[in-house]
Amino acid sequence: MKLATLRDGTRDGRLLVVRKDGEAGAPHDRWTTLQAALDDWTAAEPALRELSEGIEAGKVETSPIDPYRLAAPLPRAYEWVDGSAFLNHVILVRKARKAEPPKTLETDPLIYQGGSGDLLGPRDAIELYDPAWGLDYESEIGVILGDVPIGTTALDAAKHVRLLVLLNDCTLRNLIPDELAKGFGFFQSKPATAFAPFAVTPDEVGDAWRGGRLHLNVRSTYNGQVYGDCDAGEMHFSFFDLIAHVSKTRRFTAGTILGSGTVSNADRARGISCLAERRMIETIDHGKPSTPFMVVGDRIEIEVRDAGGASVFGAIDQRVVAAGGAS
Amino acid sequence: MKLATLRDGTRDGRLLVVRKDGEAGAPHDRWTTLQAALDDWTAAEPALRELSEGIEAGKVETSPIDPYRLAAPLPRAYEWVDGSAFLNHVILVRKARKAEPPKTLETDPLIYQGGSGDLLGPRDAIELYDPAWGLDYESEIGVILGDVPIGTTALDAAKHVRLLVLLNDCTLRNLIPDELAKGFGFFQSKPATAFAPFAVTPDEVGDAWRGGRLHLNVRSTYNGQVYGDCDAGEMHFSFFDLIAHVSKTRRFTAGTILGSGTVSNADRARGISCLAERRMIETIDHGKPSTPFMVVGDRIEIEVRDAGGASVFGAIDQRVVAAGGAS
Repeated sequence: MKLATLRDGTRDGRLLVVRKDGEAGAPHDRWTTLQAALDDWTAAEPALRELSEGIEAGKVETSPIDPYRLAAPLPRAYEWVDGSAFLNHVILVRKARKAEPPKTLETDPLIYQGGSGDLLGPRDAIELYDPAWGLDYESEIGVILGDVPIGTTALDAAKHVRLLVLLNDCTLRNLIPDELAKGFGFFQSKPATAFAPFAVTPDEVGDAWRGGRLHLNVRSTYNGQVYGDCDAGEMHFSFFDLIAHVSKTRRFTAGTILGSGTVSNADRARGISCLAERRMIETIDHGKPSTPFMVVGDRIEIEVRDAGGASVFGAIDQRVVAAGGAS
Repeated sequence: MKLATLRDGTRDGRLLVVRKDGEAGAPHDRWTTLQAALDDWTAAEPALRELSEGIEAGKVETSPIDPYRLAAPLPRAYEWVDGSAFLNHVILVRKARKAEPPKTLETDPLIYQGGSGDLLGPRDAIELYDPAWGLDYESEIGVILGDVPIGTTALDAAKHVRLLVLLNDCTLRNLIPDELAKGFGFFQSKPATAFAPFAVTPDEVGDAWRGGRLHLNVRSTYNGQVYGDCDAGEMHFSFFDLIAHVSKTRRFTAGTILGSGTVSNADRARGISCLAERRMIETIDHGKPSTPFMVVGDRIEIEVRDAGGASVFGAIDQRVVAAGGAS
C-alpha cells in the first residue's frame, strides 16, 4: 500500500492511504498519523490495508491528492540515519574534495546521523541563504523501520523494514571540508532533507525489492534535463547490511528512517544523482568543473518508476528560492 | 518547575509535575506527555506551573517519586545534538587518541548529531556487549529547546531554552578511532544516552543559569568515589552560542535536546567527568593510563546540587550489566 501525510496544521499531519495510481486518497478513522501507525504496526497495518483495498475497489470515498499539500511522510522523525552505500559516489565525492576513500570502503559502511526534527515535503522550496555554501541535491532511497533490537543481524533485518521512501538529502558542499576537518561529521553542511509524496510497503514494488535493495532506477531531472537515471540496485551494502551496522551498539525506535546514500553507478552513461559527482567527472575529463552548484530559480525533480512505468513514490519537485521565501 | 516522565507502558510515558524536593509528584489531566507540552508550550507552561504551585502548597494529591520507575524526561526525542563546549575536555581527549585539537577550537564549536530514538532513564542499566569496546561515561548538562528558527543568533537564543537536563552520554572509546577515521563522525561509538530524573525550567536554579551557562557543579561518583566535581559554568561556548551554531542552516523542532559536552575544568583539582580524561592525565604523569574503562558491576552516579545543597535534577545512578540484563 501507499501512504502519504497531508498537512492539516498539526505537527505530524494527517495520514492518508493513497490509491495505487497516486491520484486520490482517504484518511483512516483510527490511525491518524504515520508515526502512530508505526508505533503499533501490528494493529495498524491490517486496518490500513483494508482501507487500501476499499479504495482500490472504489468502495471508499476519496479526495484528490495535491502534492503541494503533502508533508514528508514523517514530517518529524525520531532518527534519520543516512548511509553512503554506493561506492562509486564515495570514491567520486572524496576525489572531489581531495580526500582518500576510507581503507575499509568495501567492508565497513559509511553512516552519518542526520537531523530528523524538520523534514520537508515533496514540493517544499529549498531555501538558499548563501549561494557560496554550494547547494547540491542528493537523490536517495530510504527505508522506514519498525523497532530494531540491538545486535540485529543482516539475515534478520528484513522484518524490520516497514516502508520504502524516496528522498533528497540536500547538501551544502562548500561547508563540508571545514566541518569534516573538525572530525565530528556533518552538521551545518546538511540542511533539511525532503521526501517524495508516498511511503510504500515493500510488496508494492514486487520483486524489485529483494535482498534489501530496490532494483529500480532513480531519475533526477535538473532544470528540465535528465541528469541521472541510476540503478538503486547497485548498492554495495544492502539496507539489511546497514541495519546490522547501525544496531551493533544501540536499538532503534519505530519510525527511524535509514537512507542508502546518493544513488550512483559505475557506468557513467547512467548519469549522476548529485552535482558533486558531475563536477568531479568534469574535473577528471577537463581539468576543472563546469557545472555550478544550485542557484535561486533551479528546479530538481526526482522520481522512481516501476517496470510498468508507474511512479512508485510520486515526484520530488523542488525549486531553490532565496532565503525568506522570495524566488 | 520540575518535570519527570513516569514509565506507564506507553512509548512516551506519563508527564509528572514534581515537588521541588523531588520526593513526590502528580500528573496533569491535559498535558500527559512532555513532548505534547513542548509542542504547545505557550498553553502548557502556565497550566503545569499552576499544578506545580498547587503541589508546593500541599493542595494537590501527589504520589511518591520512585526514580526506578522514571524514564528519561523525553524517552524518545526528535533530535539529540551534542556539543563539546569544554575545551579542556577536547584537548585532553584528542591528546589521548593522539589527534590534534581542531585549529578552530576556540572559535567554531564542535557538534555531533546523536541518536535520539532511545533515551535511557536515570536508573537504567548500561548494557555492556563487549568490554573491549572501552565503555566510558560522560557527565553533561543539556537544554531542551522549543522551536528554533533557522538563523537564530546567540543574542536571541535564550527564549528558545525550555528546560535544563543532566545526562550521561555513554561512549565506547575503543570504537572511536576507526569510526572517526572514516570521516563521518560518531555512530556505533555512541550507545544510548541516559538522563537524570528531572527536567527543570531555568528559573528553578535562579541566577545559576546566566549567559547560557549553568553555574553549578556536576559531581560524578564512580564506584562510590567522587571522581569529579566540575564547574559547568566553565563552558567556552555557551548554550546560546551552540544554538546559533546549529541553526545556521536548518531549523529545530520543539523537544530537541542540546548537550554541553563533557563538563571539564582546566583546574585538575576539580577531577574529571569521564574516564578518558583521567586516563590521559595518568598518561601525562606516569607514561601510561592505569584507570581501566568500565566493567560489569561498575556504578556511575551523577548529580548537581544547588547553592542550598538541594539536588537539582535528581541523580543518575546506573550500573553496568552484561548484555542481556544479567549483572
